[in-house]
Amino acid sequence: MAVYTHLGAGELAELISHYDVGQLVSAKGIAEGISNSNWLIETDRGRYILTMYERRIDIAELPFFLSLLDHLAAKGCPVPATIHDREGNAYRMIDGKAVALIEFLPGVSVDAPTASQAYAVGQALAAIHRASEDFTMTRENDLRPSNWKDLLEQCTADDMSAIDPDLPDIIAAHLPSLMSSWPTELPRGTIHADLFPDNVLLLDDKVSGLIDFYFSCSDFLAYDLAVTHVAWSFVGSDTGFSAEISEAILGGYQSVRQLSADEIAAMPLLAKGAAMRFIATRTFDWIDTPADALVTRKDPMDFVKRLQFYDESGLTAFAPLSQ
Amino acid sequence: MAVYTHLGAGELAELISHYDVGQLVSAKGIAEGISNSNWLIETDRGRYILTMYERRIDIAELPFFLSLLDHLAAKGCPVPATIHDREGNAYRMIDGKAVALIEFLPGVSVDAPTASQAYAVGQALAAIHRASEDFTMTRENDLRPSNWKDLLEQCTADDMSAIDPDLPDIIAAHLPSLMSSWPTELPRGTIHADLFPDNVLLLDDKVSGLIDFYFSCSDFLAYDLAVTHVAWSFVGSDTGFSAEISEAILGGYQSVRQLSADEIAAMPLLAKGAAMRFIATRTFDWIDTPADALVTRKDPMDFVKRLQFYDESGLTAFAPLSQ
Repeated sequence: MAVYTHLGAGELAELISHYDVGQLVSAKGIAEGISNSNWLIETDRGRYILTMYERRIDIAELPFFLSLLDHLAAKGCPVPATIHDREGNAYRMIDGKAVALIEFLPGVSVDAPTASQAYAVGQALAAIHRASEDFTMTRENDLRPSNWKDLLEQCTADDMSAIDPDLPDIIAAHLPSLMSSWPTELPRGTIHADLFPDNVLLLDDKVSGLIDFYFSCSDFLAYDLAVTHVAWSFVGSDTGFSAEISEAILGGYQSVRQLSADEIAAMPLLAKGAAMRFIATRTFDWIDTPADALVTRKDPMDFVKRLQFYDESGLTAFAPLSQ
Repeated sequence: MAVYTHLGAGELAELISHYDVGQLVSAKGIAEGISNSNWLIETDRGRYILTMYERRIDIAELPFFLSLLDHLAAKGCPVPATIHDREGNAYRMIDGKAVALIEFLPGVSVDAPTASQAYAVGQALAAIHRASEDFTMTRENDLRPSNWKDLLEQCTADDMSAIDPDLPDIIAAHLPSLMSSWPTELPRGTIHADLFPDNVLLLDDKVSGLIDFYFSCSDFLAYDLAVTHVAWSFVGSDTGFSAEISEAILGGYQSVRQLSADEIAAMPLLAKGAAMRFIATRTFDWIDTPADALVTRKDPMDFVKRLQFYDESGLTAFAPLSQ
């Protein structure tokens, strides 16, 4: 959440001149995105988000992300289309860093969704799964079970115990079985893989934007639903499970794309895996981030609670599906 | 440059409902302001900046800052007017913190001004001096010479030497004489006191916004011109003095408000004082900020160079005035 690079008005105006978007009127660095710098750009013709890719993003992967946005936007999904420059490029380089101009979408992210909002989010997720059926590019998920193990192996037991004394045992109790029983045969497609509330823009009950596709990849569609379920069903004033939000997410999803029996049966395992994915990255980032750094570290224990919830409740956590 | 506090969509919508500005459409945390959190707010009726006062700002001083904006905006100066809530309040409280909604102004900040832009900035500065002649509220400058001394006395010689071995001697050579010869009788008024390029929004050669009035106070008008001169005349690809920009700032100012002979004679001293003011705060902040913090520390030595330049060149740095 930061602007890592300073771009002067001259650099911005020069950049904008390569696009058919009008004259620069305003540019504000915005606190959005985990590892990119972002500006809200206004011209005399409209508003745009300018993203500079700072870290974590491999430029070789940008065509996948940006083409996916174009593909989904062309099919009517509420995602920001990439603005191409006058030569047709989806991104340009400034001082060795890639920058892309994308549509600005209205809407705000909610902290505590209503059931109607959660239903709309489930629908929107299924809609991008259906709309990407004929998207031909692929990208391997670099946060699959073997990567969780790799990340956690870089953390010592002492480091993990400092976060919570029980954390090493909990990981040891769950990670091996998640890896050995992880599905291999579920329907695959292009997934968002990180559809947390802050990546969804809403106007009342309508999804006006799905954003931040920089974890998107080719993987099980039901895993994306599991990530979304883990991300939304515990949101709100307390962090307990909300059966109402859970049902709304699942109901919205199924209203657009019907899950198979195999996918339904796999949901508890996929949800535990989704929780472990965030335990792994949050534990790694926690240990990798100085305690006095200005970035807020995210507590992996939030997702330990969710993992344990899914472990205890099994298919009942997905009640409407299992009935 | 950060957003220190999270405000959820629900909190934002509730806040906005107290103002006659329409329905919330978008809210983006923006990387602007040194010690406040800021959001660019869009409603179905317009755009606004929401500021939450986090640190350094004493709530008791908010009426001065916000009333000054209203006063200047009403007189046609390009400053953001305060949006008052339905009960007429200029600010509201959220969780013990004050928030204010102000106008959004278009324009971008330049890194390297043209002479035309610098002329317009000089004009805009003089215009707020004239427009505030009948502004009746006052606020003591809490960064006047005695405060520079207080700040620097909190820094040890070792700490200062770590920034630059010459820094303690340079301060010792200049601070006492600045304090003893500081003027007492120059024309006073309401000054911005921090008119750096990032606090000026420009659309081509036109000043579209003067922002960030949170150092504004009652002090010598010519000191404000000196601060602006120090802030702008060394800006650009190298940090050497630009006689062209200097002349443009001074010429623009004088085209709106004529300096007295006493003010002109005092300019070299005031400019050295302005440089010392930034040396003092930057030295204090440098020592007060961990080297590994994510905020970029500003090097006080930039202003040591400017102080030495003014010391050596005297009135010739203000050539059009002294002729």
